[in-house]
Amino acid sequence: MDDYAEAEYRARLARAQAMMAEADLAALFLTTEPEIRYFTGFLTRFWESPTRPWFLVVPAQGDPVAVIPAIGAHLMAQGWISDIRTWAAPDYADDGIGLLAETLRELVPEGGRIGVPSALESHLRMPLADWARLGGMLGRRVLTEDALILRRLRMVKSSTEIERIRHACAVAGRAFARVPEIARAGVPLSDVFRNFQILCLEEGADWVSYLAGGAGPDGYGDVISPATDAPLAAGDILMLDTGAVTGGYFCDYDRNWAVGPVSSIAQNGHARVIEATQAGFEAARPGATAADLFHTMNAVLGGDAAGRLGHGLGMQLTEWPSLIPADQTVLEPGMVLTLEPCLETVPSRSIVHEENIVITATGAEWLTAPAGPDLPVLEA
Amino acid sequence: MDDYAEAEYRARLARAQAMMAEADLAALFLTTEPEIRYFTGFLTRFWESPTRPWFLVVPAQGDPVAVIPAIGAHLMAQGWISDIRTWAAPDYADDGIGLLAETLRELVPEGGRIGVPSALESHLRMPLADWARLGGMLGRRVLTEDALILRRLRMVKSSTEIERIRHACAVAGRAFARVPEIARAGVPLSDVFRNFQILCLEEGADWVSYLAGGAGPDGYGDVISPATDAPLAAGDILMLDTGAVTGGYFCDYDRNWAVGPVSSIAQNGHARVIEATQAGFEAARPGATAADLFHTMNAVLGGDAAGRLGHGLGMQLTEWPSLIPADQTVLEPGMVLTLEPCLETVPSRSIVHEENIVITATGAEWLTAPAGPDLPVLEA
Repeated sequence: MDDYAEAEYRARLARAQAMMAEADLAALFLTTEPEIRYFTGFLTRFWESPTRPWFLVVPAQGDPVAVIPAIGAHLMAQGWISDIRTWAAPDYADDGIGLLAETLRELVPEGGRIGVPSALESHLRMPLADWARLGGMLGRRVLTEDALILRRLRMVKSSTEIERIRHACAVAGRAFARVPEIARAGVPLSDVFRNFQILCLEEGADWVSYLAGGAGPDGYGDVISPATDAPLAAGDILMLDTGAVTGGYFCDYDRNWAVGPVSSIAQNGHARVIEATQAGFEAARPGATAADLFHTMNAVLGGDAAGRLGHGLGMQLTEWPSLIPADQTVLEPGMVLTLEPCLETVPSRSIVHEENIVITATGAEWLTAPAGPDLPVLEA
Repeated sequence: MDDYAEAEYRARLARAQAMMAEADLAALFLTTEPEIRYFTGFLTRFWESPTRPWFLVVPAQGDPVAVIPAIGAHLMAQGWISDIRTWAAPDYADDGIGLLAETLRELVPEGGRIGVPSALESHLRMPLADWARLGGMLGRRVLTEDALILRRLRMVKSSTEIERIRHACAVAGRAFARVPEIARAGVPLSDVFRNFQILCLEEGADWVSYLAGGAGPDGYGDVISPATDAPLAAGDILMLDTGAVTGGYFCDYDRNWAVGPVSSIAQNGHARVIEATQAGFEAARPGATAADLFHTMNAVLGGDAAGRLGHGLGMQLTEWPSLIPADQTVLEPGMVLTLEPCLETVPSRSIVHEENIVITATGAEWLTAPAGPDLPVLEA
């Protein structure tokens, strides 16, 4: 379980209930890991199993009610939630839907509106057939969208959340500092990936939910591939991008290295993405928009950046907002962001750089120890 | 990318299309990681990011069409799929739904039925609001359930899939053998968890998607909790249960150890779950049902087992079928299962044991090296 004080959850609940009152919602209905953990502290890797659905109902007044498989009752009861209703999942006759409908009918008056996260970056983690069935079991209660309440809540982090992200960043920072121990010319990229995860664990990660990267002359072709067995070669630029987790919170940043002597193309490209990151950091303050940060960084990159140049971060590897021209989210203190400029160095090859920051009352603060313009060099 | 030969994917497609013909489905519409990887080989940890939806359309004739964010095009193009349609996600005006609807209208005739996995252990990985919008953009084409086609396909593994699971089991087996290096009285459970993941990586895991466990006198309270910092103590039973991944396939099994001298309660409990596992293995053959395995193991356990006593395994940590009384799935060669009996040793504390097997033409074969009845002892 998350070991936050109950006050942390009560503050989240109070914010949610204020937004629900504004949006005329009688309850929120939640099904995914971060949504449920946000209100309950229920932290487990058991979500890796797709077998069982998990439900949380947050009523307009009163405390959340967990409607969950019996296998999770022991863990849920270690937290602050006291109303825990269980069934023996998987149940082929009724996999919790009867119990859930009964709970919703109890907590939501006839005609009441039940908010479900429905917009971008959300999904419903339960079988579609059960979702359809649920709709018919609620009388005149209506399942509708959640007025972006979950997004608005989670996008602004509490100080305890920020400290957890800062801690995850520090863990990955120590692992990045040790990369010369594991990477040099001749080492297969798959070994680098495996050993980098070991470094993250040695430095204190609870687990390493994400690692991507690439290597190639003057840059790499994409940034989402798992590793191949191809060995690092002199002239390669190596990039590692990790989402290490501590206390249920992610970092998400990368570092680049040159294998042996570095070309001016790669060095200049790296210096440029560092400069763009710095410009993004300087533009980051309350009142600026996500789009502003995109445009600021894009100007340094030459003006033709494709894709997004950063995003939110927290209980998930990527969260709202997106640093893209269309995102008019106004930055507020407590928002945690990645700055992630990308520059094509040679055709079809790029260098990506990424740091993590938090918006403060007057500007922004680094959560990572920002990299300098010079590419660190690995043994060729 | 998965490096299977194209023949593997063509065989999967042919099986799917035969089932689609039987079920009168003009296409399958898929949104989740294992569903899309099953047909395309698209293997990436980037699914950890919830930002972008990914779509695959499998038509009744012809090859699958990927409708995916542009960031994934480079990786997808390394596989066998040639029709890859992309958009610049996230797009707040239309996050791929227009392109998807156009693709479905092209591949599915008016009045055609489009199958979507909808039953237990499935979900739809896209925003609910976009799902609702999609329904209105398809003319007289109908989104309906998939006649359990994905379940029926994935439940029976090919020989190459079985070899990958066997490999993951071997990796975890070598890590389990080294647990005495990292666990003894006085070591915090959180350190054991961290170091066990390191052992899995050292022994060849690509990544460690799941680790749970517990420790306590004569057993543990639940099997889904992350580790606390409580140190191991003499008299504890330690259990580690891992889903290590190699080549995109999971193992899922556990091992138990006694810290110091073992009580007869714990030793007898352990011997009993081993005996139940062995009985399950002997009952596992084509023609037996999932329920048969439950009842066979339950008889050894004393007849009052709660919950399921095993499940399928493959691209996910847990898959169909479930070893529960209600599951009448008839076992077939190629099904990969866990046998996972659980016994309460003292009130609210249990010992769980788990092995992985594959159904063969004449019976079953161990994918793990099965544990013996005696609890191995760690230094007290």
